[in-house]
Amino acid sequence: MVAEIKSLNEECGIFGVWGHSEAARLNYFGLHSLQHRGQEGAGIVANNHGRLKGHRDLGLLSEVFKDEREIERLTGDAAIGHVRYSTAGSNSILNIQPFLFKFHDEELALAHNGNLINATTLRKGLEKEGAIFHSNSDTEILMHLIRRSKQSTLMERIKESLNAIKGAFAYLILTPDAMIGALDPNGFRPLSIGQLENGAYVLASETCALDVVGATFVRSVQPGEIVIVNDDGYQIEKYTEDTMLQICSMEYIYFARPDSNIAGVNVHTARKNMGRRLAQEAPIEADMVIGVPNSSLSAASGYAEESGIPYEMGLVKNQYVARTFIQPTQELREQGVRMKLSAVSGVVAGKKVIMVDDSIVRGTTSKRIVQLLKDAGAAEVHVRISSPPLKYPCFYGIDIQNQKELIAAEQTVEEIRETIGADSLSFLSVDGTVESIGLQFDAPYNGLCMAYFTGDYPTPLYDYEKDYRNTLEKINERAPLTT
Amino acid sequence: MVAEIKSLNEECGIFGVWGHSEAARLNYFGLHSLQHRGQEGAGIVANNHGRLKGHRDLGLLSEVFKDEREIERLTGDAAIGHVRYSTAGSNSILNIQPFLFKFHDEELALAHNGNLINATTLRKGLEKEGAIFHSNSDTEILMHLIRRSKQSTLMERIKESLNAIKGAFAYLILTPDAMIGALDPNGFRPLSIGQLENGAYVLASETCALDVVGATFVRSVQPGEIVIVNDDGYQIEKYTEDTMLQICSMEYIYFARPDSNIAGVNVHTARKNMGRRLAQEAPIEADMVIGVPNSSLSAASGYAEESGIPYEMGLVKNQYVARTFIQPTQELREQGVRMKLSAVSGVVAGKKVIMVDDSIVRGTTSKRIVQLLKDAGAAEVHVRISSPPLKYPCFYGIDIQNQKELIAAEQTVEEIRETIGADSLSFLSVDGTVESIGLQFDAPYNGLCMAYFTGDYPTPLYDYEKDYRNTLEKINERAPLTT
Amino acid sequence: MVAEIKSLNEECGIFGVWGHSEAARLNYFGLHSLQHRGQEGAGIVANNHGRLKGHRDLGLLSEVFKDEREIERLTGDAAIGHVRYSTAGSNSILNIQPFLFKFHDEELALAHNGNLINATTLRKGLEKEGAIFHSNSDTEILMHLIRRSKQSTLMERIKESLNAIKGAFAYLILTPDAMIGALDPNGFRPLSIGQLENGAYVLASETCALDVVGATFVRSVQPGEIVIVNDDGYQIEKYTEDTMLQICSMEYIYFARPDSNIAGVNVHTARKNMGRRLAQEAPIEADMVIGVPNSSLSAASGYAEESGIPYEMGLVKNQYVARTFIQPTQELREQGVRMKLSAVSGVVAGKKVIMVDDSIVRGTTSKRIVQLLKDAGAAEVHVRISSPPLKYPCFYGIDIQNQKELIAAEQTVEEIRETIGADSLSFLSVDGTVESIGLQFDAPYNGLCMAYFTGDYPTPLYDYEKDYRNTLEKINERAPLTT
Amino acid sequence: MVAEIKSLNEECGIFGVWGHSEAARLNYFGLHSLQHRGQEGAGIVANNHGRLKGHRDLGLLSEVFKDEREIERLTGDAAIGHVRYSTAGSNSILNIQPFLFKFHDEELALAHNGNLINATTLRKGLEKEGAIFHSNSDTEILMHLIRRSKQSTLMERIKESLNAIKGAFAYLILTPDAMIGALDPNGFRPLSIGQLENGAYVLASETCALDVVGATFVRSVQPGEIVIVNDDGYQIEKYTEDTMLQICSMEYIYFARPDSNIAGVNVHTARKNMGRRLAQEAPIEADMVIGVPNSSLSAASGYAEESGIPYEMGLVKNQYVARTFIQPTQELREQGVRMKLSAVSGVVAGKKVIMVDDSIVRGTTSKRIVQLLKDAGAAEVHVRISSPPLKYPCFYGIDIQNQKELIAAEQTVEEIRETIGADSLSFLSVDGTVESIGLQFDAPYNGLCMAYFTGDYPTPLYDYEKDYRNTLEKINERAPLTT
Repeated sequence: MVAEIKSLNEECGIFGVWGHSEAARLNYFGLHSLQHRGQEGAGIVANNHGRLKGHRDLGLLSEVFKDEREIERLTGDAAIGHVRYSTAGSNSILNIQPFLFKFHDEELALAHNGNLINATTLRKGLEKEGAIFHSNSDTEILMHLIRRSKQSTLMERIKESLNAIKGAFAYLILTPDAMIGALDPNGFRPLSIGQLENGAYVLASETCALDVVGATFVRSVQPGEIVIVNDDGYQIEKYTEDTMLQICSMEYIYFARPDSNIAGVNVHTARKNMGRRLAQEAPIEADMVIGVPNSSLSAASGYAEESGIPYEMGLVKNQYVARTFIQPTQELREQGVRMKLSAVSGVVAGKKVIMVDDSIVRGTTSKRIVQLLKDAGAAEVHVRISSPPLKYPCFYGIDIQNQKELIAAEQTVEEIRETIGADSLSFLSVDGTVESIGLQFDAPYNGLCMAYFTGDYPTPLYDYEKDYRNTLEKINERAPLTT
Repeated sequence: MVAEIKSLNEECGIFGVWGHSEAARLNYFGLHSLQHRGQEGAGIVANNHGRLKGHRDLGLLSEVFKDEREIERLTGDAAIGHVRYSTAGSNSILNIQPFLFKFHDEELALAHNGNLINATTLRKGLEKEGAIFHSNSDTEILMHLIRRSKQSTLMERIKESLNAIKGAFAYLILTPDAMIGALDPNGFRPLSIGQLENGAYVLASETCALDVVGATFVRSVQPGEIVIVNDDGYQIEKYTEDTMLQICSMEYIYFARPDSNIAGVNVHTARKNMGRRLAQEAPIEADMVIGVPNSSLSAASGYAEESGIPYEMGLVKNQYVARTFIQPTQELREQGVRMKLSAVSGVVAGKKVIMVDDSIVRGTTSKRIVQLLKDAGAAEVHVRISSPPLKYPCFYGIDIQNQKELIAAEQTVEEIRETIGADSLSFLSVDGTVESIGLQFDAPYNGLCMAYFTGDYPTPLYDYEKDYRNTLEKINERAPLTT
Repeated sequence: MVAEIKSLNEECGIFGVWGHSEAARLNYFGLHSLQHRGQEGAGIVANNHGRLKGHRDLGLLSEVFKDEREIERLTGDAAIGHVRYSTAGSNSILNIQPFLFKFHDEELALAHNGNLINATTLRKGLEKEGAIFHSNSDTEILMHLIRRSKQSTLMERIKESLNAIKGAFAYLILTPDAMIGALDPNGFRPLSIGQLENGAYVLASETCALDVVGATFVRSVQPGEIVIVNDDGYQIEKYTEDTMLQICSMEYIYFARPDSNIAGVNVHTARKNMGRRLAQEAPIEADMVIGVPNSSLSAASGYAEESGIPYEMGLVKNQYVARTFIQPTQELREQGVRMKLSAVSGVVAGKKVIMVDDSIVRGTTSKRIVQLLKDAGAAEVHVRISSPPLKYPCFYGIDIQNQKELIAAEQTVEEIRETIGADSLSFLSVDGTVESIGLQFDAPYNGLCMAYFTGDYPTPLYDYEKDYRNTLEKINERAPLTT
Repeated sequence: MVAEIKSLNEECGIFGVWGHSEAARLNYFGLHSLQHRGQEGAGIVANNHGRLKGHRDLGLLSEVFKDEREIERLTGDAAIGHVRYSTAGSNSILNIQPFLFKFHDEELALAHNGNLINATTLRKGLEKEGAIFHSNSDTEILMHLIRRSKQSTLMERIKESLNAIKGAFAYLILTPDAMIGALDPNGFRPLSIGQLENGAYVLASETCALDVVGATFVRSVQPGEIVIVNDDGYQIEKYTEDTMLQICSMEYIYFARPDSNIAGVNVHTARKNMGRRLAQEAPIEADMVIGVPNSSLSAASGYAEESGIPYEMGLVKNQYVARTFIQPTQELREQGVRMKLSAVSGVVAGKKVIMVDDSIVRGTTSKRIVQLLKDAGAAEVHVRISSPPLKYPCFYGIDIQNQKELIAAEQTVEEIRETIGADSLSFLSVDGTVESIGLQFDAPYNGLCMAYFTGDYPTPLYDYEKDYRNTLEKINERAPLTT
């Protein structure tokens, strides 16, 4: 009675602190609370009176720094850190950030969260001019641009370079004199400023990392902004005026920790509201509401409260899955041996169950969980998804670039229902999603990027344009997309 | 806004299979689902046509078997395995089970869950007769008794030996010809029999392990029973008639996985019922009910449902805590840097909160969580504990042998409330606990061991008698215990 | 132009110190100089004011103690240590010594160098009386005997037990009050007493270990003696008067380090004398003398000096072989890819070469080296062995228990010459060996055990008697043994 | 009776093969025989039908490839490899070679042995043009030059780039279509071509690596040559005509393995000749000649033969030193606890000893060994060095760039004798060295670089010019240098 749980992954979390004698250790704790944003590798670079020193490796943060001396070695009053999720299969230490660059005339460290959409073009152009890349990372591109800029100051060179890159990015840059944060013109990725009791400033991908280190929230970094933190405090500048807020809606739906706030909205609350709205949009009579742990528990409890149907623990996740190296053989798998998720037959047997999940990517996971519940004796399984169907690829950092992997791009809701074996299936509407999250910005979808649901990309697609058009045509031939 | 979460630990989980060509691999998956019962070490011994071979080491199962070849090496149609929680500080590989013994005339492997209460006496006596012990484990004592028994068959020797040991035990024994399970006369620890599709039999500490390997539940092993599984199927014998069921109530309250059933009662359901009963026994007006993750979530949702107060996610547990080696320094700890649990200020700020937890041991953890919630802005924090106060030590395998560590042995409920800084505090009654779990056996407390709550120990205390009396006197001088 | 070099292995080295605040660290350095006696595992047990604590593991000493903290943890003024060579294939940590035993009434640690020849009988008898063994090691047998002895003091129990075991042994025993060394009645294995500048006493398998820690040689332990070292100094007792010195001649020929002295004779000098004598017994005209590194270099230089023929470096050993995990495939091996030994064609090409080696076991290595030299262009290869033919098994600790593996037990010298492809072959005579080593004791072979050359075993063979007689008969049928 | 032995280190060994189905495995064995040239790190890059793949890490080759799968993963018919010795303290994996570069239009791997003397200038210039370096290695400089060259073919770009770099270098370059070797215009470092039985070509730093893989020597690469190996065989081109052979004489004296031939001269033979000549130039009456293991054994046996004085093993090296992590404390060191080298008191006590060593760098090691011998009882110790005094720094890859560390730059021979505590001290003359090695090229010193002995640098010093002149002046003020 167990099944694999899906993984929809995002790229990376970043954290930085300027002005605290235990900067690297604070980084460790901040990154630890961002570990859900990337498990492939981690690193920290500290600034010890102008001399940058770093440590990075493949693995979870606790593995990378399993020897305490690695943290103690990173002395200094400032540090930036990174946890990485790998999009491509290139699990080389060369791709683990922050990158540390030492030139004859300056030192810099860089960390990046997001995905550039003109990276291939920029990289090819730079290589033609003699540039040598050592990683597959977009981060290195920015470094080449900064070094080649003819502007007179580092800040000017950085600003010029930020204007050359397109897509989604939240950068942290550490120099001997300052910690710099920069956000793309659409603010796809969250980036928050906090302050410690001693006055030190902190930059972090999510506010949960501020909480963990005891920092007070100061403000969110806005699209097109650069934050410069140094011994004089922090200062905000803009490198472009051509901005429009488009926060990745999947941060609310799936990625971010429920205790984080994004643009002033608590993630758990947003999810619970989506669950409530889903109960209004797609009600059904049943004995219980269950959520798929862990990301759908908030939405499930919202659905339960709104509908008045009891909320039960019908699925249990093994908390020790993170690093399981040995897998069942094909034979054992067929025999029902699975490891991550269990259906609680003592709870669901003979019952009509509403199973709330946050999204459906390929459908294979949903199919397994429905099967799991039925094997455990559930009489009916009604699937309710607390977001709209994922129909379009994302080029801004979510690992769904390949549209062919999206079941909703190829099948109707009824076809999906049949595929996953549910007794009924409903998705939350686009409007329902936008209104449940409740942003109020003067921008499309009130400031949310909903592109994977609607195809309304907030930017030109640059390197991805051609492929995307081709794919789109093929899909439309088979199954014209309709919301 | 984070705090350490408590750890009340039990000793070990066991799993065995007889009659499947991938016995060791099934063991791996079965043990994986029992990992919550012990994280100090793990091991598996397989029976390859009469030749026993094993692998064991310190660490999580996934670390012990991180090289797949270690599993592949354990060929054979039968295997028993063990995950260990360490009571004493002796984290030596010598204590990791199963123990494998090779004599000139027989081979046996043993694994044990529980705690003997006449171990010191037995061990001293055996040593006086020349016995040499290589571990601190009770398991080794049984082996010495079996080898020294003058009975004619192995089964008779085992039965004689089981009658010599006192306390709580669930044993698994693997021989070239059979897999044997044995339960103490009170059935303190759960032990279930399951069957795979191919007919193979499985023995496991919890039914969740049966589910994970796709086995059907057959029956629970009863107090004083021996199960013999061999190529002819399974057979039940009794080694004593002097039995009385006294299942450890903490299995329902805290230890077992919510998807396990014990004596026919689902653990999640029992917890939810305790939460409901708690809402009846100790109601309070508030804005929300929150549970301490993960073991109290069921009780919290029960409380919420019964009271009609919304269930919210006010505390978030970092899912990556299991192995965090680096700790905050004292300075950082004072500054509010903690790692395991976060209070969600976006949810609790300004609200009256009912915080449901399953138990209070020393009170330090409860104090931290209350503080965490207040730091996050909670207006009031009302603590509700879904079990009675822990006042007495346990000698049957729960890690609360030292009564001085139990806050409820020394303080009244009102004193505890003050200590932990809650606005109100209530515990579930003994009757409420017994009735919520809902066993119906003709035995004290309907078949539950409630000794840590009531002092009613179901057995003489043997080696622990003297110390216990002394401690009790001292405590009674200070704070006479009353239920 | 490379070949594997032979390995004839002995069991273990032991080292102990009593009375120095850095006892464990001194042990580390002492054992390091004894690493050639065993590379499978290592361990140290220290005595910290009556509390014994140890660390042991598989691997080279530098691997077992690669974390300096493992040494620092072993505080205390006394310590014994062990490096292990495995005879049986049982590479389990359970067999790594010293063994540390903790009873309710005493603590002891034991380390052992040698091989008991009545171990099987003793073990079976002990198991019948209820004893449980956790290792395959002879060391554990002594512990069982000591614990079962009814004598009144530990020393009396030890003496009684030593009289029950037969064969070759040098034991080190550490108790809270003393360090005890014991040697078998034939003194097969060397054991020396040394003293540090601060007055502390040291016991070691070879005198090279005394040199390394800066200790002065005091005396050799004699057959049948027990040395007791405690805070009052050292004291010698005898546990038997039935003794006869029979030092293992292979210690001089192959095992011991050239800088060690055994029974007052320097090992390098003994080897050089064997080389000189060999030049007298088996002269031949040639262009150069070369030795097989490293153990035959002394004998080769002796041969060169005596014969007046230049000593050249015709074979080079790769100093980085110790831990080479990757081996050539069969195809590459045929192509001539080998890793440990190279013939220097620039030296041997076109020359008549005398190749001096210390012994021939199976002949395969000699064959490879001769081929190597011929492939490198040597015109003639004349093999000279600085010891007699190995015809009989050893039961006292050298890894040649299986007579079928000894080429000289089955072939004449001329047949061996043909097998290994040499142009001529000679062995040193038994008399030549004995006289070159130059002991002067009133015992067979002047105090040397020459059993593997002559079949004159100095003791009854106990457990090995029957097998040995059978084997002997079969061999005699085929090729009657003659010296 | 033990002392540390000196370490004079060189940079790196390289090995490549083109045209064999087990190219990576052959590389492993080739590099293994070159391990003495560098122990800091190792790596291999293989070419699998145009796709390059590599593995590299810090540590000995056997550690880097301790998992056989790392070799098996490197499929392909060609491979180049590298063992690294670190000059600077930068023990980062980023400096471990071969470097593998993947561009949008080509792939290359590079490995380098030697030291560029205009690297700082080149690097600064390249960085000013936007280049980003990821390592401290000279290898990366060549890659930048190749990528920035405007020549039309890769070969032309490589040739142009080779003309821009100055100093000592032997490069291996692997492309999808060819393996390329290149040697600097002075041929400071050895590089040989060999051929396997199947016709595949091999390039290696030393001929011992050819022997190990069963390859036949074809020819040495000459100064200014490029070797291109591809599926059509090998081809030689010159990238410059301005060449003059100046082989590093320290290769003969200390670095190379005795079984290697350089420029047709066997290294052991050269060393033995130096020992003979030393006996002629600096005779002394004594009881024995001993060599400092391992590099001085050849010279010592030459001295012994020429003088007629017996060659003895007075010093023994522990063969297990390579990786010893735990060091004696200061207290233990003073007490005489040392680990690498032992003096054999049984051999040297009461004797007049001639101790032959290959060179003296700082004098500290020589001082320790003399002391060691005297502590072991040697009556007199006469030190004979089989090369001239090291007075000048080396900029071509030997780790003696800092002249202040050279005792012979500051002290006269008599002063050095006093410093090291020898009874007499002599060095081999410059002429004696040149004539013993016996090259016959029409070039200064018959083709040898003797700069560290004579100050006659064969090239301008570029980046090092200024520092060198300053140092020289200071030294001359104190102790005018004379040959």
